[in-house]
Amino acid sequence: MASFLIIGAGAVGAFFGSALARSSEPVSVVCRSDYDAVKQNGFAIRSPLLGDHTFRPAQVYRSAEEAGAGYDYVVLTTKVLPQTDRAALLRPAVGAASVIVLIQNGIDIEPEIAAAFPDNELLSAIAFIAVARAGVGQIVHQSFGSLNLGCYPRGITPAAQRFAATFKASGVPCQLTEDVIGARWQKALWNATFNPISILGGVLDTAAILRTAEDQAFVRKAMHEIAAVAAAAGHPITSELIDKLIAATRGMPPYKSSMALDFEHGRPMEIEAILGNVVRTAQRLQVAVPTLDALYALAKMVEGKQMPR
Amino acid sequence: MASFLIIGAGAVGAFFGSALARSSEPVSVVCRSDYDAVKQNGFAIRSPLLGDHTFRPAQVYRSAEEAGAGYDYVVLTTKVLPQTDRAALLRPAVGAASVIVLIQNGIDIEPEIAAAFPDNELLSAIAFIAVARAGVGQIVHQSFGSLNLGCYPRGITPAAQRFAATFKASGVPCQLTEDVIGARWQKALWNATFNPISILGGVLDTAAILRTAEDQAFVRKAMHEIAAVAAAAGHPITSELIDKLIAATRGMPPYKSSMALDFEHGRPMEIEAILGNVVRTAQRLQVAVPTLDALYALAKMVEGKQMPR
Repeated sequence: MASFLIIGAGAVGAFFGSALARSSEPVSVVCRSDYDAVKQNGFAIRSPLLGDHTFRPAQVYRSAEEAGAGYDYVVLTTKVLPQTDRAALLRPAVGAASVIVLIQNGIDIEPEIAAAFPDNELLSAIAFIAVARAGVGQIVHQSFGSLNLGCYPRGITPAAQRFAATFKASGVPCQLTEDVIGARWQKALWNATFNPISILGGVLDTAAILRTAEDQAFVRKAMHEIAAVAAAAGHPITSELIDKLIAATRGMPPYKSSMALDFEHGRPMEIEAILGNVVRTAQRLQVAVPTLDALYALAKMVEGKQMPR
Repeated sequence: MASFLIIGAGAVGAFFGSALARSSEPVSVVCRSDYDAVKQNGFAIRSPLLGDHTFRPAQVYRSAEEAGAGYDYVVLTTKVLPQTDRAALLRPAVGAASVIVLIQNGIDIEPEIAAAFPDNELLSAIAFIAVARAGVGQIVHQSFGSLNLGCYPRGITPAAQRFAATFKASGVPCQLTEDVIGARWQKALWNATFNPISILGGVLDTAAILRTAEDQAFVRKAMHEIAAVAAAAGHPITSELIDKLIAATRGMPPYKSSMALDFEHGRPMEIEAILGNVVRTAQRLQVAVPTLDALYALAKMVEGKQMPR
C-alpha cells in the first residue's frame, strides 16, 4: 500500500486522483474551492475512459497544513502561475520519505521544486488530457487521458515504476521515460504554439488555427523554433514529429486549448510556464525565436488587458 | 471652379467631401448604403474641426455609372479590399481630363489604378483622421483630420496644388509631399503595427498595446522591420521617427484602430492593403520581417474565423 495526497484537486487532480483510487490505495486531496461539496459528496466524474463514477477521496483537506506530512506520494496538480508559490503549497505535506510528483504544464518547471526539496525524489509527469470542471465537484473528462512520466532530471526509479504501475492498473495509459525533460520539449511543440495562438483573435480553435496552408506553415515555423531551442538544450526533436503533430491536430475535431478556455472564462493563463520559459531558454542559449517572441509579446498584451495589475 | 466626385462616401468620404464643399465648389457623391437618407437630408456631420453641420452634396448617386464622367477630380475613398475592384468602381466616372485621387489606406495601392488609367493624373493621399459613421447619414469626426498628398509615383503638379489649396481653404490641414510613397511608408509604421495587433486578443486599444516596456519594445521591433523594408524600397525612415511615434501614441487617450473597429463590427478588414503588401514587398526585396510575418499570419487566422470563405 502507498498513500497519495493530491494538492490542487481541480479537474486534472480529481481525474488522476480518481484513477489512483481505483487501485484501492488511499488517495486524499487538498481541494480549496469546492471543499464543502467534495467533502460531502466526492467528485462526480464523467469519463469515457474510466466510466461515470464518484470519486470519494480518503480525506478531503482545505490545505496541505491540514493534511500534514506522511504521504508516500505528494502530487501537485495546480496550474503553474507566477503568483502561485508551489514550494509553499507542497511544504507542509512533504515528509522525509515523500516522493513529489508534478502533474503540471510547461517547460523548466522542476528546478524551483528540486531546489526547495533537495532530499526528496522528484517525478515529473506530463498529462495528455482534456478534462474540465463542469460545476461544483463535477468533472467532465472529454478526451485523451494519459501520462508521460520520469524522474527529474532524468532516469526511472522504483518509485516512478510503482507510481506508473498504479495508474496502468487503473486503466490510465502511463508511459515511463528516461528523459522527461525531452518529453516536455516534445509536448511544448503543441503547447507553446496552439495555446498562445488560440487566445489571439478572441478564441481560435484548432480548425481556425490550421485552416489554410499558410496557417499551417506559420504553426510549423513556430514549432521549428521550439525544436531549435530543444536541440540547443540537448533534447533534439525531429522534423517528422512536427509534421505528425500538425497532421494529427488537423485530424481531430476542432479543439480549444486549455489557455483558450482559461481566457474565455477570465481565469489566469499559464503563459509563463508554457511559452515564457521557452523564450527565456532560447535567450539563455542564444537561439533566435522571432515567431515565439511575437506570440509571447502578444499573449502578454492579452493577459495585461484581461488582468490589469 | 473645379468639380469633384467622391466615390465611396462612407465616413472618410463624407468628411473630406464636406470639407471640399465648403469652398463652394460642386461636390457630388456616390453613396450606396445610405443613398436614400443622404439624397434627402445630406450628411449630418459632427466635427470639432469643421463644426457641426449638414453636408448636402451637389448630386447623390447610387453608382459611378449613374454619375457619369466629366468631373475634374474623381476621389476614391473606399476601403482597399481584395474583393473590391477599385478600377471598376472608378471607370465610369473617369474622363480624359479627370484627375484621380485616392484617399485610402495601405502600401502599394496605387500601381493597380495607375495601370488601369495610364493617361490620367493620379494623386495619392494619406488621411490622418478618426471619423466614424454613427448611423444612417450620421458622421462623427473624433480627432485629427489632415491629409498628406502627392502625385504618384512622385512629384507635385498644379492639379495637386489646386486640390490641396481647396482643402486648406476649408480649414483641413493638407500637406503636399514630393515623395508620397515615402509618406505611405511612414504611415505604415503605425498602420501596419497597431492595426493588426489591435485585433489580436479580441480588441486591444493603444493603451493595452503599449502598457509595459516589453510591449513597447515589441511594437518598436515590428516598426524597425517596416523601416527596413521602406529603406530597401528607397524610402528610409529614421529611428527617431519610430521613437516619436510610440511616444506620441502613448500620449494619446486610449484609441482603437480602424481595424479593431472593423473587427468588432464584423466588417471586412484592410489586412492586405495595410500589412499584407508590406510583407509582400519585404519578400520581393528579401528583407527578413519575422515579426510582421507573425502578425500577418495571425491576422489572417482571425479574418478566416470572422469571415469563413
